[in-house]
Amino acid sequence: MDTKKINLAEQQMPSQWYNIVADMPNKPLPPLNPVTKKPVTQEELSTIFAEEVVKQELSTERYIDIPDEVREIYKIWRPTPLVRATGLEKALDTPAKIYFKNESVSPAGSHKPNTAVPQAYYNYKQGIRRLTTETGAGQWGASLAFAARHYGLDLQVFMVRVSYDQKPYRRLMMQTWGAACTASPSTLTAAGRATLERDPQCSGSLGLAISEAVEMALQHPEDTRYCLGSVLNHVLLHQTIIGQEAVLQMEMAEATPDVVIGCFGGGSNFAGLAFPFLGKNFREGHNMRIVAVEPASCPKLTRGTFQYDLGDVAGFTPLLPMYTLGHDFQPSDIHAGGLRYHGAGSIVSQLLKDGMIEAQAVHQTETLAAGILFAKTEGIIPAPESTHAIAAAVNEALKAKEAGEERTILFNLSGHGLNDLSAYEQYLAGSLRDYTPSDSEIAATVNLLEKII
Amino acid sequence: MDTKKINLAEQQMPSQWYNIVADMPNKPLPPLNPVTKKPVTQEELSTIFAEEVVKQELSTERYIDIPDEVREIYKIWRPTPLVRATGLEKALDTPAKIYFKNESVSPAGSHKPNTAVPQAYYNYKQGIRRLTTETGAGQWGASLAFAARHYGLDLQVFMVRVSYDQKPYRRLMMQTWGAACTASPSTLTAAGRATLERDPQCSGSLGLAISEAVEMALQHPEDTRYCLGSVLNHVLLHQTIIGQEAVLQMEMAEATPDVVIGCFGGGSNFAGLAFPFLGKNFREGHNMRIVAVEPASCPKLTRGTFQYDLGDVAGFTPLLPMYTLGHDFQPSDIHAGGLRYHGAGSIVSQLLKDGMIEAQAVHQTETLAAGILFAKTEGIIPAPESTHAIAAAVNEALKAKEAGEERTILFNLSGHGLNDLSAYEQYLAGSLRDYTPSDSEIAATVNLLEKII
Repeated sequence: MDTKKINLAEQQMPSQWYNIVADMPNKPLPPLNPVTKKPVTQEELSTIFAEEVVKQELSTERYIDIPDEVREIYKIWRPTPLVRATGLEKALDTPAKIYFKNESVSPAGSHKPNTAVPQAYYNYKQGIRRLTTETGAGQWGASLAFAARHYGLDLQVFMVRVSYDQKPYRRLMMQTWGAACTASPSTLTAAGRATLERDPQCSGSLGLAISEAVEMALQHPEDTRYCLGSVLNHVLLHQTIIGQEAVLQMEMAEATPDVVIGCFGGGSNFAGLAFPFLGKNFREGHNMRIVAVEPASCPKLTRGTFQYDLGDVAGFTPLLPMYTLGHDFQPSDIHAGGLRYHGAGSIVSQLLKDGMIEAQAVHQTETLAAGILFAKTEGIIPAPESTHAIAAAVNEALKAKEAGEERTILFNLSGHGLNDLSAYEQYLAGSLRDYTPSDSEIAATVNLLEKII
Repeated sequence: MDTKKINLAEQQMPSQWYNIVADMPNKPLPPLNPVTKKPVTQEELSTIFAEEVVKQELSTERYIDIPDEVREIYKIWRPTPLVRATGLEKALDTPAKIYFKNESVSPAGSHKPNTAVPQAYYNYKQGIRRLTTETGAGQWGASLAFAARHYGLDLQVFMVRVSYDQKPYRRLMMQTWGAACTASPSTLTAAGRATLERDPQCSGSLGLAISEAVEMALQHPEDTRYCLGSVLNHVLLHQTIIGQEAVLQMEMAEATPDVVIGCFGGGSNFAGLAFPFLGKNFREGHNMRIVAVEPASCPKLTRGTFQYDLGDVAGFTPLLPMYTLGHDFQPSDIHAGGLRYHGAGSIVSQLLKDGMIEAQAVHQTETLAAGILFAKTEGIIPAPESTHAIAAAVNEALKAKEAGEERTILFNLSGHGLNDLSAYEQYLAGSLRDYTPSDSEIAATVNLLEKII
């Protein structure tokens, strides 16, 4: 019997995260204070985030130790399996070897707890008693609820009203784990109350939910801090546990990937898998292709502009150097809610600009077709986000077949789709729609940006 | 760092299922033809089920080989982890060691694929092209859909109308895996059409769905067979992969359980974990307590009668020797849908009668409270069925604390609850209700049974 899953023992779980900034030929540009346009300081960021998290955000150290207290919680579901997609290979009749890292096995069903746990831990260690965050469809809110519970922290999640009403399951996950989940706009904050006064029926937005979460943290500096689930350097750093494990597992499989693939929203699952391999390109002279796959409806990497931009709609975050569609860009309502973000974080943007990584855009009808093929051949029903990586892996496998070459493909299965089955329902009913923004739609929001770079 | 999960390598996955019939001091009574009242023959059963499955149903061999083609599919999620519930132990402040076998990691989210895969395989090997089955809430239908796909078999699932309308997620899982899922009553069968003629708005029942599935199989003997997900001997046999693994894993942990616990519906996850340990009691003189935990609202083990009874409402199945509440018993609508079955299979019933296993009944408010404690301390949100096992494990751990004894507790986490969160919603809202059937309610249905034993 061939080995299907390459598993690591708990004792083999990496003890350090990998910070790719140390190895980048061109370092990312610094985040700027949106008022002064000067690089933000550690002190400024520490009013919002835990101090240790801020240090990591600005760090240039190559490796950062994972605290034992974090590794203890990681062990609930880590190390995760590296899986040979033998069923998919057979269905495609390809000479390529396809591997995937299965991050769907966490209790929250995705890779998000990889950063939720250390963020909760560093806040706990600093004496913080309460966390705040926002969530759209609920993946991040649920993951932080799971993590906060383990350190006895209270958590206030602001969930966009429309999702709160339409997607009760992830809200129920948060509540089961003991978090308070409130529809945004809420009456808990000035920002929420002002909005409700203007529009009592407001269905909310991610931008407003961020404003509410940050406001609550800023108003209680003695015991409350805010957490973010993607985009920022420290979030990507924590996710590198994925790739650190995968490097070991690919060695055990005696294979080197020709291409490493991740779907791309804010960058966290992509970077988590890819950066440790990219680091090998930098340090050991490998030439692995690193591919980020975004939805064609939100194409910041393939059609955006490299520019300083805000991370949120409300303007609470520093200015970040990003490939961006403009922070006012309104992506269409695709099922991969986690990929509907207007910009890419500083590190990924610099790497793309320097040609160190590639980007591809695909439509959701193509990705869900790939997702169904994957479900039928590998058994796991993937999250709509993850189907973007699967579609790209399928394309690479078919190209290998055309070329008659035995290439090795690795992608990240960032989560399962058991709480997102309406995407599959629409696909199977033939009612799923694609959307490609016009050049003028993109220009309209990008042109609003200040020219700082 | 202590080990949290005890994992087996794929190569350590057991190559045989364990048939406890070989070691039982008193063998189970035979299934009877409901018309002739004589033991059913292999030929009679083979019109409904695959031949190899029928052989296993009647086998007294101690070990039965697991085909390589089944082990290949098992490897998608097996071996499953044995987990030390350190978080739960700490919360209970107990000297007991609590372990659980995590069967929630399968793509369908429960232990059901353990038997769905071999049942599909044996049908495929026999040249069968199409399977039929019924499903209530959808766990079994989804698992068989997952399994059928791997051998290229068509599958027709009859899903009880009320669940079909109210629980779209598991229906969508079946459809994503390529199965046809039809609301029952349907127009596909005579039984369905007759019902719809009498009552066009009929919301269906499990009994009727079984009738439809069996009718379709009987009408196409050339290429169609029926599959069942619990109760029968061959189903319990396939589930012993759980306990066969757990025996190895407990040895690796250098611990022997004082008590082995499983929730109890038709018996498949309970037997799956418990029988290999019970076999050690029989063969090696161990004295491990084996505990089946049923809902107080459907108390066939603790308040039923040992009696020959039909396995289904419609009367298609053989008469089985069961602890039963009567096949007309209508359990209240608890959230643990998988535990709402009127009887226990032949083997479990004989073992209970002979005092080889214990039975406990608990209310769903208690089990869901235990489920929430488990979610907060161990991270995984358990299926409502599995919370019955957790509640019993918690009670055992508290008794150990009272006695000041370091006891070892093992239970089966049969599935996750990510598609059953409405149970938690009702619990958290304080609107969850318990139900205890009166003695006269139970007597009313039990008294309808013929006295054959």
